Amino acid sequence: MSATTLLNHQFRLAARPSGLPKKTDWDQTSEPVRDIFEGEIVVKALYLSIDPAMRGWMNENKSYIRPVGIGEVMRAGGVGVVVASKSPRFTVGDVVSGGIGVQNYWVGAADDKFGGFFKIDPRMAPLTTWLNTLGMPGMTGYFGLLEVGQPKAGETVVVSGAAGAVGQTVGQVAKHLGCRVVGIAGGEDKCNFVVGELGFDACIDYKGGDVRAGLKQHCPDGVDVYFDNVGGDILDTVLTRINMKARIVICGAISQYNNTTPVKGPANYLSLLVNRARMEGIVVFDYAPRYPEGVAALAKWLKDGSFKSREDVVDGLEHFPDALLMLFEGKNFGKLVLKIADA
Amino acid sequence: MSATTLLNHQFRLAARPSGLPKKTDWDQTSEPVRDIFEGEIVVKALYLSIDPAMRGWMNENKSYIRPVGIGEVMRAGGVGVVVASKSPRFTVGDVVSGGIGVQNYWVGAADDKFGGFFKIDPRMAPLTTWLNTLGMPGMTGYFGLLEVGQPKAGETVVVSGAAGAVGQTVGQVAKHLGCRVVGIAGGEDKCNFVVGELGFDACIDYKGGDVRAGLKQHCPDGVDVYFDNVGGDILDTVLTRINMKARIVICGAISQYNNTTPVKGPANYLSLLVNRARMEGIVVFDYAPRYPEGVAALAKWLKDGSFKSREDVVDGLEHFPDALLMLFEGKNFGKLVLKIADA
Repeated sequence: MSATTLLNHQFRLAARPSGLPKKTDWDQTSEPVRDIFEGEIVVKALYLSIDPAMRGWMNENKSYIRPVGIGEVMRAGGVGVVVASKSPRFTVGDVVSGGIGVQNYWVGAADDKFGGFFKIDPRMAPLTTWLNTLGMPGMTGYFGLLEVGQPKAGETVVVSGAAGAVGQTVGQVAKHLGCRVVGIAGGEDKCNFVVGELGFDACIDYKGGDVRAGLKQHCPDGVDVYFDNVGGDILDTVLTRINMKARIVICGAISQYNNTTPVKGPANYLSLLVNRARMEGIVVFDYAPRYPEGVAALAKWLKDGSFKSREDVVDGLEHFPDALLMLFEGKNFGKLVLKIADA
Repeated sequence: MSATTLLNHQFRLAARPSGLPKKTDWDQTSEPVRDIFEGEIVVKALYLSIDPAMRGWMNENKSYIRPVGIGEVMRAGGVGVVVASKSPRFTVGDVVSGGIGVQNYWVGAADDKFGGFFKIDPRMAPLTTWLNTLGMPGMTGYFGLLEVGQPKAGETVVVSGAAGAVGQTVGQVAKHLGCRVVGIAGGEDKCNFVVGELGFDACIDYKGGDVRAGLKQHCPDGVDVYFDNVGGDILDTVLTRINMKARIVICGAISQYNNTTPVKGPANYLSLLVNRARMEGIVVFDYAPRYPEGVAALAKWLKDGSFKSREDVVDGLEHFPDALLMLFEGKNFGKLVLKIADA
């Protein structure tokens, strides 16, 4: 097969958004996939991961990773299949995970740092699971909870965005460790799922109820670990309920990513002082050398049925801008992935 | 001597203040010192410690210590001398440190938990030093820096309230550990003192200059440890300059204690995420069993001249309300103490 016969549709960043990304912040482009040189591969996108972190990558500010440049293909992790290879590392047909970008085909050196492709075993779990429990969100939840949250059996763990990609892993890992686990999620359906399907002890519906009252009811012994994916008022409310020596894992702040005003800092942060508690950030890349350990642990639980991986699949590259907005409206139910092509 | 001959003047909490404490928030009362029973002592106040934390004790909210009740003598640590004793633990003439309260005489059981009196050696250091470097502020700075801040030689340590009670200890301990130490203080005089007398590497005058520019200039390698006594805008500014794995010690937030609006949370707290950094509270009481270790270390440095303890003495119990306000206006220069009587 010749890569030059392939047409590549792409979403490129056209402008840095103010507030929620608009259609005009994207350029849709098409180009033929170029011939590859020695050491290069072509990866055909099958599924892309749609993540809250994408919003941060669109800003100009320096963060834990460089911003996406204006005119660049939008960054996205994904799973795909190698359709052309001049690299000894990959064979046509290999299923891989890596930084594909919001496009049909990734082309470049097989050892490209940004691409960072590695082979995955599609018999081990469905492809979408490799973007969820066995991918970045799963690793974030697993290492963030264990290494920063440091929960002990019998402690109470609260996680926001409980039905989301990271939240579902955090809660289920905490249950496996013998913790009391209380989720916070938006809507009755998500709460029912989190308790009924994922086995959380309780879930507080922040859209339909009072988070403070919910915490009082469901965390009678206070909160030992809070894994925060949302920031804003929910973080502030949980801060009023933490125990002595509590650990707050700062993983994200989806409520604040589209602010056009400054981020709302946690007004109750002095609860850290009163309770000798800790608030600490986690970035999953720090644990890259240990991903195999995380994947093995979670895959074992997935296999024995004691762990569930829920994805919400939107079909079609062309829906990328709308899919991204779903995250900020809380419309996704489980890890949001964009299906690009059949395997 | 009979304790009943003594007249005790007291400041009692009359009302819970809104914003800065007003004269009308205090009741001045006088009563004779009562006879003591078996196991009790009378402590004559010599010096009282005037602390930012007092403002928090005046609020109704539960904190790390119970609020002072309306009508109660205001809580204050101090040094005094035992003038009557029916306890085998203390002899008349013993110099002691403990929770005297804002009054001339403390009366009660020698093993009273609140009083918590222990003998001090007045030959080891001046009495006021026992309320500063060798007292709560010193212990707060010493254990807060070492245990929560965990500085390593060569790292950059920034401390706000640098000329204050806790700040002067933090900075000098950090210098002893081989760190680069940058203070933040209000006014040229304090900055000159902190650099010239205490040996900090630099000091940023937040009243006369730009804290952000100062941090850029004086912390060319970023900030590894920030010991925060002030909160507010200064905390937010330092958060923009922290290094990977930085540790922020939350010791106080004097800028926020008299707010009539909600506390200003750190809007830049997501810097904790980007930098995998930590923000953690410290309450000195947790280290009570280790005070002798802290006192020994600091006393050794005081003795060899490599450590200074600076106190700002206001004379007279009647000046207590004004002395307290000095703290919130940044008018004290060094640890603020109120002299009650000659030894």
